[in-house]
Amino acid sequence: MYRSHTCGELRLANAGQTVTLAGWVQRVRKMGSLNFIDLRDRYGITQLVADENESKEINELVASLGREYVIQATGVVTERQSKNNKIDTGEIEIKLTELKVLNKAVTPPFTIEENTDGGEDIRAQYRYLDLRRAPLKRALELRHRMAHEVRNYLSNVGFMEIETPYLIKSTPEGARDFVVPSRMNPGEFYALPQSPQTFKQLLMVAGYDRYFQIVRCFRDEDLRADRQPEFTQIDCEMSFVEREDVLNTFEGLAKALFKNVLGKEFTEAFPRISYKDAMEYYGSDKPDIRFGMKMNTITDMVKGHNFAVLDDAEYVGAIVVPGCAGYTRKQLDELTEWVKRPQVGAKGLIYIKYNAEGIKSSIDKFYSADDLKAICSAIGAAEGDLVLVLSGEKKKMQGALGTLRLEMGNRLGLRDNSVFAPLWVCDFPLLEWDDETQRFYAMHHPFTAPKPEDMEKFYSNKKEDLEQVNANAYDFVLNGTEVGGGSIRIHDSKVQERMFEVLGFSKEDADYRFGFIINAFKYGAPPHGGIAFGFDRFCSLFGGQETIRDYIAFPKNNTGRDVMLDAPSRIDMAQMDELFIKSTAPEQK
Amino acid sequence: MYRSHTCGELRLANAGQTVTLAGWVQRVRKMGSLNFIDLRDRYGITQLVADENESKEINELVASLGREYVIQATGVVTERQSKNNKIDTGEIEIKLTELKVLNKAVTPPFTIEENTDGGEDIRAQYRYLDLRRAPLKRALELRHRMAHEVRNYLSNVGFMEIETPYLIKSTPEGARDFVVPSRMNPGEFYALPQSPQTFKQLLMVAGYDRYFQIVRCFRDEDLRADRQPEFTQIDCEMSFVEREDVLNTFEGLAKALFKNVLGKEFTEAFPRISYKDAMEYYGSDKPDIRFGMKMNTITDMVKGHNFAVLDDAEYVGAIVVPGCAGYTRKQLDELTEWVKRPQVGAKGLIYIKYNAEGIKSSIDKFYSADDLKAICSAIGAAEGDLVLVLSGEKKKMQGALGTLRLEMGNRLGLRDNSVFAPLWVCDFPLLEWDDETQRFYAMHHPFTAPKPEDMEKFYSNKKEDLEQVNANAYDFVLNGTEVGGGSIRIHDSKVQERMFEVLGFSKEDADYRFGFIINAFKYGAPPHGGIAFGFDRFCSLFGGQETIRDYIAFPKNNTGRDVMLDAPSRIDMAQMDELFIKSTAPEQK
Repeated sequence: MYRSHTCGELRLANAGQTVTLAGWVQRVRKMGSLNFIDLRDRYGITQLVADENESKEINELVASLGREYVIQATGVVTERQSKNNKIDTGEIEIKLTELKVLNKAVTPPFTIEENTDGGEDIRAQYRYLDLRRAPLKRALELRHRMAHEVRNYLSNVGFMEIETPYLIKSTPEGARDFVVPSRMNPGEFYALPQSPQTFKQLLMVAGYDRYFQIVRCFRDEDLRADRQPEFTQIDCEMSFVEREDVLNTFEGLAKALFKNVLGKEFTEAFPRISYKDAMEYYGSDKPDIRFGMKMNTITDMVKGHNFAVLDDAEYVGAIVVPGCAGYTRKQLDELTEWVKRPQVGAKGLIYIKYNAEGIKSSIDKFYSADDLKAICSAIGAAEGDLVLVLSGEKKKMQGALGTLRLEMGNRLGLRDNSVFAPLWVCDFPLLEWDDETQRFYAMHHPFTAPKPEDMEKFYSNKKEDLEQVNANAYDFVLNGTEVGGGSIRIHDSKVQERMFEVLGFSKEDADYRFGFIINAFKYGAPPHGGIAFGFDRFCSLFGGQETIRDYIAFPKNNTGRDVMLDAPSRIDMAQMDELFIKSTAPEQK
Repeated sequence: MYRSHTCGELRLANAGQTVTLAGWVQRVRKMGSLNFIDLRDRYGITQLVADENESKEINELVASLGREYVIQATGVVTERQSKNNKIDTGEIEIKLTELKVLNKAVTPPFTIEENTDGGEDIRAQYRYLDLRRAPLKRALELRHRMAHEVRNYLSNVGFMEIETPYLIKSTPEGARDFVVPSRMNPGEFYALPQSPQTFKQLLMVAGYDRYFQIVRCFRDEDLRADRQPEFTQIDCEMSFVEREDVLNTFEGLAKALFKNVLGKEFTEAFPRISYKDAMEYYGSDKPDIRFGMKMNTITDMVKGHNFAVLDDAEYVGAIVVPGCAGYTRKQLDELTEWVKRPQVGAKGLIYIKYNAEGIKSSIDKFYSADDLKAICSAIGAAEGDLVLVLSGEKKKMQGALGTLRLEMGNRLGLRDNSVFAPLWVCDFPLLEWDDETQRFYAMHHPFTAPKPEDMEKFYSNKKEDLEQVNANAYDFVLNGTEVGGGSIRIHDSKVQERMFEVLGFSKEDADYRFGFIINAFKYGAPPHGGIAFGFDRFCSLFGGQETIRDYIAFPKNNTGRDVMLDAPSRIDMAQMDELFIKSTAPEQK
């Protein structure tokens, strides 16, 4: 062992001990005859000191040290003259008696500090240096702890982690598969799994009634910001359960994570909200409930004042922005432009400023002060508040008002990343009608069960009835982000047949697409359901960060490249020949 | 929840309780007016009983049940008349008050029993049914426990599990890569990792001084029996360590696994043996030391008796087979044929039968009874023992004698799979000379460090010196199988340059092949080393089985196919077009 201690553990209690440390040179400073080295490793920073009056040899070596040199240092733990209370080892320093350079380092292209001077590209290219920085170290440590807690919790309640294959069969449904040509089976390809969905359902058929896996998934999608072609899921499935059992089990998991990783105890049950209410009150199926500012439907209340915009609107909704009655004309104009951006999509913005000296609104012409006061009072706006109103097509404007709500939450600092507000969103519609193809699509996937109480409507032949059937599905939402999603699955082959019928699949269609699992289900499928959590996202939220990239050791960029490795890359013709493929890319034709 | 208890937990203490179970019908039996059902789930089997004199309805339902039906059963826990001490629930049965069929099942193509009547192919095709059998359940449970123990142990001693990417860069070295065409980067390919070797070394450069990962690896090799194209490794690396630290850490891990998973306590240090001694005494670099029967080199002892075969032999080796002096002519002839098979490769077999009534040997013509007795005495053969001798080219015959030793161990029942004999094999040669290409190859990989004491020879220009340089490498061997292997890596760039020189790489060559990691090492690489364990194999050995396939939930067959999924398979032309590839397989040209 090159060290007796790490750079994070020595304290005043160790004073007088001779210790050996090893690590990287963070910086070297000279003060009079004293040379100070900040020595860094995974565990912290410890100050080393060499006195020029004592060992010339050591001090010459110190003078030769550069940033990021790897050194081994032996000396005596001593109380510091001037203590540093910002670091755990700040009360002591090591008076050097021996120093050895284990490895030199060329100067890194950016500083290895809490906040670096390196841009995103250069840090991605030298990821192994960026990973030396404390924020990334904290991120990966958090991820390790999260994974460990998940495994402990689930193992303790009887779940088995079972590894499922990565080289599987390509299915034409859904997002694009990454494929892998097979050398031993010419002309054939494996696919990398988008999720272990099929396998976990097979494991239920096989009787492994509590399965989980922290597992990589692959999706060849055009990458939006903060999406990765490979990502990690906490994948779970249970047999002989109803929705309530699944929710309770994984609420338990989430609470254990909050408690053991973040020290935050949730004693109450997480709120549950229906998809319908989520849309009505938050304009989103993943509401951020760290703050209130709920949306109010005022469609009926505002009609009949000869104001066509509102009279004709399918939907009029309002939020009460607390304490913002003082917003200036300029601020309101800017906000109006903001809601008109295509990403929000409103046609305009109506405001009501509820000032102490009276109510002022952009619709004064049509509504009297009393009318406006009545609206304010109905939606709970008080003196000093600003009411913002959007109107138009219901679905679209609910979404727009939800987006505006989040923006106002941001502007008022109500979305604090150290505050955690988890909830369950339930009762999603089972089916989505597509006007273009004139058929229903499964909102989750065709194995998601309808809610038991909606079974009658599920067998109706009326479109309106079918549209009202809710899925026995649920999402776990944290701070406005969908972190987990799952459902109770169909285990009754008759219900499954009906599902295919509703989706407009012929028996042949269904067999072609899902024959494999349909077949397995003939041999005794238990009632089952499950959930999958986006682990990268879960970690980044726990870390209070917006981007998942820091929570992945070696992530890819927005074009799916690993710029450190320079992958993907060309391969040899010979290698392609062996795999029975040929490139048709323009340059290689 | 569809059940109040599992099928494995009810005991006499529960008598009188009303319980609800759910599971699969193992079998139904009728005895007089009583109908018995064995109900099975992951946890065990519980007997249900329905009395025809009590509920006609229930008994009619029972009569309709087939094997593997999924049912829900409610009833009262009652002490059995005739107890079954073979199962944990054998003292009780459930007197049915309610019975519900949750799902029917068509008759499975083989019996779901400890020993099934199904052949390997049909079981592979219906893997989800085979997985219902107790032996596979035990295998996957063992695997889960192993993984969990590994993670707990390593986390407790400061290791972080860090996930490394699966979509990486193809490198032309070593075994074949599986590749993945990139849609977003036309003409370019990712590769699936053969191991995270590069990444774990980068993590050391990044300062994550104790890394591990239970990780999938991919190798596109022609599959020998019991090899899988995707397999799982326990991958580990440490910084600021010497060999001793790595061995102690992972000996600790192995001991914890033996203790916590198998209840076997190893209080002594695992034996260590050099590669040279392993070859000399066991004819193998992965000795099975569950039994003795060590090989003896008797080359010099047997010379000078005018027996050309032995006089001219580079190597003569003997094993003492205890208590087998009574072997018949026929048995010895059969054994002689056995050693002459190409898999063993000996030219013939010499025997000495040390009987009470005298010594008898196939070389009586050249050696007197006293000569033979002297040999016997030198190698520790006693009355009743059989001595088997092979001679010829040293390396080849050491291997052949080692194989014969294992065979005799088998025949004598000395290789009990419930006995565990772990050891470390160390001091492998660093380099292997290849006559054909007239150059050295790295026996492990070019980043493996030479042993510190062999540094002088490593800088010699003499082939004989270089051949004697030992690697700072080690294998973990269990019951004759290499389960783990690793090394201290080179961290000094001068040593690394010398390594490339010895391997005959030009600077350009080295940069082309390894430039990426050489570059990273310039920024301050700490001394480091690691190990990787074959997890599938580790599990199968712990389970006392020869084959790893039962320890993988969804394995592939010998041609790399998943016969259950029928993967790999053809993909759409459109899909290939999108990926900028074309198949050149005969049928698809």
